[in-house]
Amino acid sequence: MTLIHPVILCGGSGTRLWPRSRKTMPKPFLPLVADETLFEATLGRCADPELFGTPIVVTGTAHLAHVQAQLGVRTDAEIIVEPQAKNTAAAIALAAARLPADAIMLVCPSDHHIADIAAFADAARAAAALAQDDWMVSFGITAIAPETGFGYIKRGAPLPGGYAVERFVEKPDLLTAQAFLADGGYSWNGGIFAFRAGAFMDELARHRPEMAEAVWRAVASGAKEGARFNPAEIPFAEVVGESVDYAVMENTSRAAMVPVAMGWSDIGNWQALRDAREGDDSGNRVRGPAELIDCSNVLVESDGPRVSVIGMSDIAVIVDGTDVLVTSMTGTQLVGKLSGAANQ
Amino acid sequence: MTLIHPVILCGGSGTRLWPRSRKTMPKPFLPLVADETLFEATLGRCADPELFGTPIVVTGTAHLAHVQAQLGVRTDAEIIVEPQAKNTAAAIALAAARLPADAIMLVCPSDHHIADIAAFADAARAAAALAQDDWMVSFGITAIAPETGFGYIKRGAPLPGGYAVERFVEKPDLLTAQAFLADGGYSWNGGIFAFRAGAFMDELARHRPEMAEAVWRAVASGAKEGARFNPAEIPFAEVVGESVDYAVMENTSRAAMVPVAMGWSDIGNWQALRDAREGDDSGNRVRGPAELIDCSNVLVESDGPRVSVIGMSDIAVIVDGTDVLVTSMTGTQLVGKLSGAANQ
Repeated sequence: MTLIHPVILCGGSGTRLWPRSRKTMPKPFLPLVADETLFEATLGRCADPELFGTPIVVTGTAHLAHVQAQLGVRTDAEIIVEPQAKNTAAAIALAAARLPADAIMLVCPSDHHIADIAAFADAARAAAALAQDDWMVSFGITAIAPETGFGYIKRGAPLPGGYAVERFVEKPDLLTAQAFLADGGYSWNGGIFAFRAGAFMDELARHRPEMAEAVWRAVASGAKEGARFNPAEIPFAEVVGESVDYAVMENTSRAAMVPVAMGWSDIGNWQALRDAREGDDSGNRVRGPAELIDCSNVLVESDGPRVSVIGMSDIAVIVDGTDVLVTSMTGTQLVGKLSGAANQ
Repeated sequence: MTLIHPVILCGGSGTRLWPRSRKTMPKPFLPLVADETLFEATLGRCADPELFGTPIVVTGTAHLAHVQAQLGVRTDAEIIVEPQAKNTAAAIALAAARLPADAIMLVCPSDHHIADIAAFADAARAAAALAQDDWMVSFGITAIAPETGFGYIKRGAPLPGGYAVERFVEKPDLLTAQAFLADGGYSWNGGIFAFRAGAFMDELARHRPEMAEAVWRAVASGAKEGARFNPAEIPFAEVVGESVDYAVMENTSRAAMVPVAMGWSDIGNWQALRDAREGDDSGNRVRGPAELIDCSNVLVESDGPRVSVIGMSDIAVIVDGTDVLVTSMTGTQLVGKLSGAANQ
């Protein structure tokens, strides 16, 4: 089988893991779950030379220094530096336009956690095989809770190693999410995709011809500068930013999905991070100097100050610089509404 | 009526308001409830020149600088600097030995909060009148909860403006405290006492003759140095430290009490401080930069860092220097057990 090229997307800067994650040091580049950062872990998952080829990292100038600092041994990686953030469809298209038409690409967000790397690799193999046959393949992550924060994928007819996609469903309300979970035919859309590069550009040209053309022009007039590739600014500025889900996946007639249960988390808030980490006997997860008395399932993150917690359950205490966040697990959904998080 | 001399005790250094209160900056000298410190408020309560005479402050070398810095307009006060901390009986005796025998003294801890100053003054008047007749007078603070952290006073036969004390009761268990509250004849012993100076020394000589003699010698050989009075070290070192309750009040046959409801709190932990402060519409009490979402009855104290709290009720978040404390209100009882508090 041909090697799979990881296409690692390093864009955006969320507010939901504030104050640890900040505009200047966003989530992918932080060692949130393990000692390595989420970006490093993403690279590491795609390091098996029997399965994966040279990675492409797509990022913006704001995060370039972090990417370069954390590439580690992957000095062979190409870094595509987007002149502007234009959402995932254009980011993926830049990589697809740089790769040979018959290259198989596996699009990986850089800020997710995956506990079971073998399951990830198996799904990558299955997805690559379908992509080889010009399917546009989503990882369909086995839903284990009625999550309202994710899009869902309804599976259709069986294919080798996966299923055709019957439809993509936007973030549901709780009752709908509960029905999806009970049904069993719905998976989470985790934003991991496999494509043949040429097939992706064909589908993009079919459904978003202006975007495809702008990306082709930006790549054709772009400049290689060491490990970096700089798409041309003027044509790329024409791109209307859109997610790959809207621009391609919901329009193509060849959407497929590969079901996978791999201990996946988008680490979408402090509760998700707490749950992704190993706890002690009381379920507490502590990083930094701390002392806990009568606590359970408490997450503590401190970059220096000593944190003392007494008599608390299911809260997060985050200390970063001159910010202290104390939140219930339910409250983690509202972190982005804090003025500190909103006005970084 | 003769003027009452406030005798303000500034000793000890608790651990229960750690990390704000520290060995080097203990509770009396912090603006915990209001903009003024508890010590300043104690002086301020005894400032009416119609009722109160020159105050005496009894403290140790460790707190002397704080006392001097916070005396404000009371430059006339005498500061008795104990060579060693020897508990309350000796501290009070030093003041009693410095005052004329017929002076009336009102012993006031410097780390309590009293909301109703008029009620305090009324009780001081009543207590002074009884002290004039050589009663050893305790303030009997109206119990409003089954507190297990205080000693209690059982009142006996009525006296003018108060009652004889039937007995003093040590800190009760919860069931006993509930029975006391239901009974109505028990008050809290808040450590506020009125004595005629000579009568106090007589009673001390009766029940603790060695202590009385050591104090007399320490005062007789002591040295005045500006506003300070330094008792002689060698005789004072002989004193066996004991509380005034054990040494005098529980032994005298002339113990009296004056009942008073004055919004008293010993600010004995973060919950007590929370309750002593004015809250906003949601019952939150905030000092320092903070933002609260979906919170009620939360106490926030920060000496600088911005504190963000989401979805919490009845907790305290204290930020001081490089320490962050997060505790449930129940947990405030355990603050002293934290290694940070224990090893200041």
